[in-house]
Amino acid sequence: MSPYIVILSTGSELTAGRSLDTNSGWIANQLFELGWKVKKFITLPDDPNLILKELQSLKDLAKELPVLGIMTGGLGPTEDDYTLETVLKLTGKTSYSIEKAKLRLTKIYEARGKEYKDILPNVFRQTFVPEGCKTLDNSVGIAVGFIESLGENSYLVCMPGVPSEMTEMFKRRLVPELKKLYPRENLNQRTKWLWNIGESLFQNDFIEPNRDEFFKDAEWGVTANRGYIKCIFQSTNESLLETIVHRLETQYPKIISEDVFQYVHEQLSKMGLTISVAESCTGGLLGKKLTEPSGSSAYFLGGCLTYSNEMKTSLLGVPKETIESFGAVSVEVATAMVKGLCERTGSTYGISITGIAGPLGGTEVKPVGTVCIGLREPSGEISVHQYIFPGNRESIRENASNTAFFLLYQSLKK
Amino acid sequence: MSPYIVILSTGSELTAGRSLDTNSGWIANQLFELGWKVKKFITLPDDPNLILKELQSLKDLAKELPVLGIMTGGLGPTEDDYTLETVLKLTGKTSYSIEKAKLRLTKIYEARGKEYKDILPNVFRQTFVPEGCKTLDNSVGIAVGFIESLGENSYLVCMPGVPSEMTEMFKRRLVPELKKLYPRENLNQRTKWLWNIGESLFQNDFIEPNRDEFFKDAEWGVTANRGYIKCIFQSTNESLLETIVHRLETQYPKIISEDVFQYVHEQLSKMGLTISVAESCTGGLLGKKLTEPSGSSAYFLGGCLTYSNEMKTSLLGVPKETIESFGAVSVEVATAMVKGLCERTGSTYGISITGIAGPLGGTEVKPVGTVCIGLREPSGEISVHQYIFPGNRESIRENASNTAFFLLYQSLKK
Repeated sequence: MSPYIVILSTGSELTAGRSLDTNSGWIANQLFELGWKVKKFITLPDDPNLILKELQSLKDLAKELPVLGIMTGGLGPTEDDYTLETVLKLTGKTSYSIEKAKLRLTKIYEARGKEYKDILPNVFRQTFVPEGCKTLDNSVGIAVGFIESLGENSYLVCMPGVPSEMTEMFKRRLVPELKKLYPRENLNQRTKWLWNIGESLFQNDFIEPNRDEFFKDAEWGVTANRGYIKCIFQSTNESLLETIVHRLETQYPKIISEDVFQYVHEQLSKMGLTISVAESCTGGLLGKKLTEPSGSSAYFLGGCLTYSNEMKTSLLGVPKETIESFGAVSVEVATAMVKGLCERTGSTYGISITGIAGPLGGTEVKPVGTVCIGLREPSGEISVHQYIFPGNRESIRENASNTAFFLLYQSLKK
Repeated sequence: MSPYIVILSTGSELTAGRSLDTNSGWIANQLFELGWKVKKFITLPDDPNLILKELQSLKDLAKELPVLGIMTGGLGPTEDDYTLETVLKLTGKTSYSIEKAKLRLTKIYEARGKEYKDILPNVFRQTFVPEGCKTLDNSVGIAVGFIESLGENSYLVCMPGVPSEMTEMFKRRLVPELKKLYPRENLNQRTKWLWNIGESLFQNDFIEPNRDEFFKDAEWGVTANRGYIKCIFQSTNESLLETIVHRLETQYPKIISEDVFQYVHEQLSKMGLTISVAESCTGGLLGKKLTEPSGSSAYFLGGCLTYSNEMKTSLLGVPKETIESFGAVSVEVATAMVKGLCERTGSTYGISITGIAGPLGGTEVKPVGTVCIGLREPSGEISVHQYIFPGNRESIRENASNTAFFLLYQSLKK
């Protein structure tokens, strides 16, 4: 039995667009992997009336069906933290201070020095919870979380809004409680990526024809990204998932992958290979992505940003005549770029990107979105892959750099 | 008169936590700059019943007060796009296809090849809008947006969920309509950026002491970014805003700026200057940011990514001994990097970045976050600025590349 799940986040910085709420999505993702679907996210400013009204409607809904409300934020020490006060108004309960949390808070504040010790009394409210509720320890920060009853099989969970405190409390304290409150069967999951295919085409070609066979006992979801779509399948039936993935691999052998960012990072690290890049239209975006994971210095050497034609010649040795004859965005220039690059850096892998990111610079023959990606493999072999990517300047640059990872993935898989 | 504003985003990928809703925060931020506050964000899965229920309560609320609902998502071509259908159910209206959008869609799909042409009839629904509503053209993608009435002075705006399409539609089509629908006294606004100062310190040092004098007739807001905070002041009283900004400039002469990204782009273009970069820990992020605006090819030449020490020597000519004596993250290496860079590229401006992005590699003397930024100015003068940036790997890299723009800004201002 699954409850009707609502995730509620509070904070005026969220509804003013000054901060991005990453908590709700993170919680939803964790719940999804546990096999639960969220019915609604709500974000409210730090306004006790608006918050109370929302909690009241959750409580009303709980008269009809099991409701699970998961709320983050508003448990801090400042005057605009209203969660506890609002919950007490909702339930008519009183609150009490958790002795353990109070001791911990005192210790932390005393260690910080006198100015903090002086304001201690003002911050004790973080250690209060409603009487008779299940508490959730905070092993990262101060504020104590709690689970309050909303009616039969219905609960309101309150957790701090600081992501590091909330995620730890969720995984270590809340999940075990949820499993007791709402027991259910284990759910399995598979994720695959498909490249250069639209969501709607995938649905037409794969989901529809297999709807009766697969998707009565399995759930599917698709997330569109720049260059690829992420396909997620869930079921309690493990062998059904295997069958789905096998069908997917058979139908799309050339465009399927796992998480290419993770795979490229792991394989390059493991195999002791090195890589360098020569970027024109992406201006450094591929290098930036390659150096996102900590530890990328094990394989990423560096490279050249050759945005102007002069730089292609002076930094990479691309012959001026090649650029003049074929244009800066051409198979020939992409080849010369990656060749010159690897001669200079000595890396086992090399990638060159040259393209028209737009909005200006397109022609009939080479429209905006035309991108050539050169790949130099450890064998010394060079191949160039030409694309026409959709969307605006940002989209084309994202597509190009992500697709470079896919080319690396395919080469590393060989 | 301000309406009661609710931002509604739909998408099962959002409530499953597979994608992060950046639209709602972005819209709230834009509305804030127009002087409007948002009362609630709601996020729903692609479930027509849940969506209809939510729209119905908005319509009910509109009987009591002016309501503005701004909805994103669900206007796409697939079966889980329910926005139009739900709005029609809510209003009892019929829909019709916008001819211009249909022609545009046909052209795009035909260009993509036969398999896309074949599914054309299935995707025409994106060009439909409810009869008698105000339409919002989509100049980036396909789906047409619209404004539907919800009652007296109350409206529901529906826009596509793809951020690039939505933001363009919002700025170019929706804002002028909103200004007509909810006319209000002209609100003036000033935005200034302050570098390397925390939100709470700014509030203590500037807002609190000036609360009585300034902030009875002016609103203020702060957005924290990587390296800087954006301070926004709003008032109908233009001369009060001038006074506030003057006080700010007097109090923070060394850390204040305008929008450095825009300023650097405009000045470099206008003055016919050129720039190149030498990046270590940022791995290409600065080059990527410099090439975000279309037209950056007028001044951005390129540069070198020298992630490994060998590359610093081979690509930029940094003496091996300098790296050995002072370490790769040092004033000396940053100097040698930017010097070698400009000798090779011949650009008027040069920037070098070398630092410890972490989480590993920090020492007692040079902790994680230590970054040296070298600046070579048109005069040939080289200066190096050393920082310790806060946060994780991503934060440190963002801080470093943004601060490089601030240094350029200061130099261009001279």
